[in-house]
Amino acid sequence: MAKTLIYNGTVVTMNDAMQVIPGGYVFIAGDRIAEVGEWPAGEAGERLLSEADDVIDARGKAVIPGLINGHTHLFQTFIRGVSDDLPLAQWLRQIIWPASLAMEEEDFYLAAMIGCIENLKSGATFIMDHHYVHTHPGNDDGVLRAMAECGIRGVMARGGVDLSYEPRLSESIPRIFANTDRLLDQWQGAAEGRIGIAMGPLNLYGCSEPFLKLSAKYSEKNGLITHIHVAETREQIDNTLQRFGLRNLELVEAVGLLGPMTQIVHGVWLSDDELELIKRSGATVVHCPVSNMYLASGIARVPEMLERGINVALGTDGPGSNNCQDNLEVLKFTACLHKVNQLDATLLSPMEVIRMGTRGGAQAMGRGHDLGSLEPGKKADVVIVDLQKPHIAPVHRVSSAIVYNANGNDVDTVLVDGRAVVRQGKCTLVDEEETIRRAQSRVDALRSKLSAAYPAFGAVE
Amino acid sequence: MAKTLIYNGTVVTMNDAMQVIPGGYVFIAGDRIAEVGEWPAGEAGERLLSEADDVIDARGKAVIPGLINGHTHLFQTFIRGVSDDLPLAQWLRQIIWPASLAMEEEDFYLAAMIGCIENLKSGATFIMDHHYVHTHPGNDDGVLRAMAECGIRGVMARGGVDLSYEPRLSESIPRIFANTDRLLDQWQGAAEGRIGIAMGPLNLYGCSEPFLKLSAKYSEKNGLITHIHVAETREQIDNTLQRFGLRNLELVEAVGLLGPMTQIVHGVWLSDDELELIKRSGATVVHCPVSNMYLASGIARVPEMLERGINVALGTDGPGSNNCQDNLEVLKFTACLHKVNQLDATLLSPMEVIRMGTRGGAQAMGRGHDLGSLEPGKKADVVIVDLQKPHIAPVHRVSSAIVYNANGNDVDTVLVDGRAVVRQGKCTLVDEEETIRRAQSRVDALRSKLSAAYPAFGAVE
Repeated sequence: MAKTLIYNGTVVTMNDAMQVIPGGYVFIAGDRIAEVGEWPAGEAGERLLSEADDVIDARGKAVIPGLINGHTHLFQTFIRGVSDDLPLAQWLRQIIWPASLAMEEEDFYLAAMIGCIENLKSGATFIMDHHYVHTHPGNDDGVLRAMAECGIRGVMARGGVDLSYEPRLSESIPRIFANTDRLLDQWQGAAEGRIGIAMGPLNLYGCSEPFLKLSAKYSEKNGLITHIHVAETREQIDNTLQRFGLRNLELVEAVGLLGPMTQIVHGVWLSDDELELIKRSGATVVHCPVSNMYLASGIARVPEMLERGINVALGTDGPGSNNCQDNLEVLKFTACLHKVNQLDATLLSPMEVIRMGTRGGAQAMGRGHDLGSLEPGKKADVVIVDLQKPHIAPVHRVSSAIVYNANGNDVDTVLVDGRAVVRQGKCTLVDEEETIRRAQSRVDALRSKLSAAYPAFGAVE
Repeated sequence: MAKTLIYNGTVVTMNDAMQVIPGGYVFIAGDRIAEVGEWPAGEAGERLLSEADDVIDARGKAVIPGLINGHTHLFQTFIRGVSDDLPLAQWLRQIIWPASLAMEEEDFYLAAMIGCIENLKSGATFIMDHHYVHTHPGNDDGVLRAMAECGIRGVMARGGVDLSYEPRLSESIPRIFANTDRLLDQWQGAAEGRIGIAMGPLNLYGCSEPFLKLSAKYSEKNGLITHIHVAETREQIDNTLQRFGLRNLELVEAVGLLGPMTQIVHGVWLSDDELELIKRSGATVVHCPVSNMYLASGIARVPEMLERGINVALGTDGPGSNNCQDNLEVLKFTACLHKVNQLDATLLSPMEVIRMGTRGGAQAMGRGHDLGSLEPGKKADVVIVDLQKPHIAPVHRVSSAIVYNANGNDVDTVLVDGRAVVRQGKCTLVDEEETIRRAQSRVDALRSKLSAAYPAFGAVE
């Protein structure tokens, strides 16, 4: 069993006491954290040094639990920046759907691989990918293969719509469940348990009531997380009011989808009563501040959610609406957005924000017992952030430096299950340069194919 | 005269036609841009290659005009992150003022040097430093020396207050002008013209009416920019209404301070009439979105300003309220903040945002004729951003990649006056590691000195 020692760093444990240990260490045995604490003088320290197969000196660096990206669409790395300034409906019709339909199996694999690398390198050890393009049978496998190969921990929420959203992207209910059955058979627990499958009805306006009810039953039967876009825009509230006379969360509850394993993605336009429903159910809200700003969706009531005791996780959302997946950047946007929105600078301390990005995510994934903090017995998902940079140093408080100063490029080392998947800012298991080169070449081909019918794919500026 | 060729990159000219040239080149002779265009085939290309003393291959990179950071307080690198979640008044009293008073001359130099490095490395070739701590005679010189040594272009707005703000930071009017006289004598046009001095009455609530009026006369007599915090918070509006029965901009106009060389920093709480005053005067608003969010000051009416034809520049603000000075990050915050604030995703295209960060800044500095775009005859202030990174590639549109994907760490090369002051992401004229090491050691001493009276300086988390 390989043993790794990380020492000399400032360890931000995120344990119940929110302990921060300057000059601390983390000792890892296999895929688990064995010890965390202040560096012991004398023999005890010598023993740790001699026992470790791999010693990582984290001087001048912060050691934090891996961030958990609660919501993304990895394949959108191939679409980011095509056109930035469109309302949601137009952006879907002119950019996302045509590109999704034109992408081939190899594209989904490559796009997801870029997306995984990006997540790892910005400090996410665990991602929830909401995958909703099932034009080729191998799309899902391509995305899951990328997750498995790069060493990240990931769950794919099998997205689906059965209403005529974009007809070529909607599916029959039996087809959706048959495909989910197959994914569960082939991928649930794959890659030494790093990979998982969740149920992912895409949103309320693309899904029929029967499909939503069956999804709830399917998740319950199989013990799955249900991951769904809810209340992202004001139009979505009108949609369920018109169809059912219910607000978004009322419908989610009515179809049986609301429970502790439910991830409400966005949850921007929620009433007090709906917040209360979420609170009572134990569900999680996955907050994606950059995407909500980029798409002009609105501002979720995050400080009020936290005050009510609702679990909040953070997400980048897909790179089609961000347009990167910098998990450290999301921390800064979260803090800044809610401060200005409520004109209250005291809201959301750095520790509260990091908590959402780590423990909030772990609880959302049903993994509060073994992820989200650096404590003995937990999985060794650890991120080391270099703070000796001119945009970070000098450092007063490490939590503040992580939230407000560091960005993805400052991540030095990432361990998942105790294995170093990023070292000195480079992925250890995949060739980044080669992946980028191949991806750009496929995207250039995609642009040629689409630019006649969709002019945005021809723009160079 | 040294000649530099940058070729193979995507050149974002920011000329009047907003031309973007894939596979373009920039040829620099001395401190000026000589040619910009598509790479010529055959002999013409060969000639350019052979004429250049230095050839920079920008394949896979964007070549943009240097960003102009319209507002910062460099010395605050020593204070960033001490405490993040305080309202403005409390933050000034418990953090900024005690630290400012405790800092020694060497601290101001080191803090400014870190700040300059940070600006250069995130793509700013030109900064406006609003310096308002004059506890030691050498504070200003330390800041200006840092600017000169690292190779950045910079103007120091000599900040001052004459009312009892923090008594030890306020000064007599004669002292302020005597000191500004000296700075003009010693520094105006220093470092081959890279360094300048501006008038910087700090804000309206810390300045008496006589001081504001004398500042206006002084700026006019000496042909200086006037740089002043205005309408940052709602309280500031109440302050001038109570003292003078005037809104902030009405007072600025009444004391003679409003003109084309005036930089209104923040301008968050402005009425329609005040926007009209600014428009008519030709003054610039310097928008600092991250700081306005961090301090919960409010959201400036930037899209409306642009619609009215007001010149808007961008700034990071001081690292005490950001807490970094990432000039590329500011672009993303700008676009995202205004989209969500107005629930309109069509606002502020990437090109409009880059325009504020380049040409908007150049016009604000009275340098529209020779800065702000890549055009023959202009000063060679050029930034090269590497786009071959997993959080940026694949690239559809370079402008979008710059605004939404790239951050400071992606800057590869920075030229100021044609001289490479950053190469492969490292400053060429200063030792970054040594500067960081010395700065952290001075900050640790500062913490020891202050922590008994101000507990925030003792916090480690």
